[in-house]
Amino acid sequence: MSLIRLKPGKRMSQGVLLGNAIFLAGQVAEKTAGGPVGAQTAEVLGQIDALLAEAGSDKTKILMATIYLADISTFGEMNAEWDQWVVEGATPARATVEARLVAPEYKVEIVVVAVA
Amino acid sequence: MSLIRLKPGKRMSQGVLLGNAIFLAGQVAEKTAGGPVGAQTAEVLGQIDALLAEAGSDKTKILMATIYLADISTFGEMNAEWDQWVVEGATPARATVEARLVAPEYKVEIVVVAVA
Amino acid sequence: MSLIRLKPGKRMSQGVLLGNAIFLAGQVAEKTAGGPVGAQTAEVLGQIDALLAEAGSDKTKILMATIYLADISTFGEMNAEWDQWVVEGATPARATVEARLVAPEYKVEIVVVAVA
Repeated sequence: MSLIRLKPGKRMSQGVLLGNAIFLAGQVAEKTAGGPVGAQTAEVLGQIDALLAEAGSDKTKILMATIYLADISTFGEMNAEWDQWVVEGATPARATVEARLVAPEYKVEIVVVAVA
Repeated sequence: MSLIRLKPGKRMSQGVLLGNAIFLAGQVAEKTAGGPVGAQTAEVLGQIDALLAEAGSDKTKILMATIYLADISTFGEMNAEWDQWVVEGATPARATVEARLVAPEYKVEIVVVAVA
Repeated sequence: MSLIRLKPGKRMSQGVLLGNAIFLAGQVAEKTAGGPVGAQTAEVLGQIDALLAEAGSDKTKILMATIYLADISTFGEMNAEWDQWVVEGATPARATVEARLVAPEYKVEIVVVAVA
């Protein structure tokens, strides 16, 4: 079964599809980097929407989301965005932990596995 | 292929099944939260047993386990429970790292991907 | 569908195959443990090459890589090895976060999911 890559780059691809399974790279904010975690979360979720759409999927077809927060005390702020993004009855499995991210301006990074 | 959700909630589901693949949400202790990491690990492994059973699977069919410890110095205590839980000859792939969890009373969180 | 295990041990297996999907355990350095992150990364990537070969796969068929760095300030040093290892046009999805690892001599741990 051949692999299809989304936005392939020299270092990584933003997504890899195997059949109907989609693995997205960890998404971090671009425009809102350095800003509050709520704005970053909203931007990251929008990036995920766009990548999933490119792969013929959407947020109701996420299997698992892993959320890394640079500061776990922002859990509530992140969830305020998350809770209004997910669709009731179609929520993914999820894990959230604290981890310092690749640059201090990133406050949240989200990884998802979905199905097309 | 349609998705089946275990204990779907507004924020997340405790598990999502795609065909014979099962993604569980990160499991943390409930009854033993705040207690020693050994007791929390035992409780979490019991939760995983229950969710896998609900999905028609069991601990010998785990593909990968990711273990987050709030304090990596508790690695040995966690392993004491893990080692007597896994079945020799049927052990999963595994990774263990330190990460602060969503509340200070949680000392261990375990994520698994399994097959039905 | 039956599971095939690579280097199964009492605590974990170094890899688990389900059909054409391969889940590898988190890989850390052995010979270069305690050494610089660049050398550890090179050794870990070599371990991944060997395990994927055993499973009938290779680095161009990795779906997702999760990289844990004990110190995120070593991101550049890790990437120097990574960038010359990956094959342009066949790069995986990837996420990199900071996490303390199971022993202080480990500076990098890499988890991959691939296809045979």
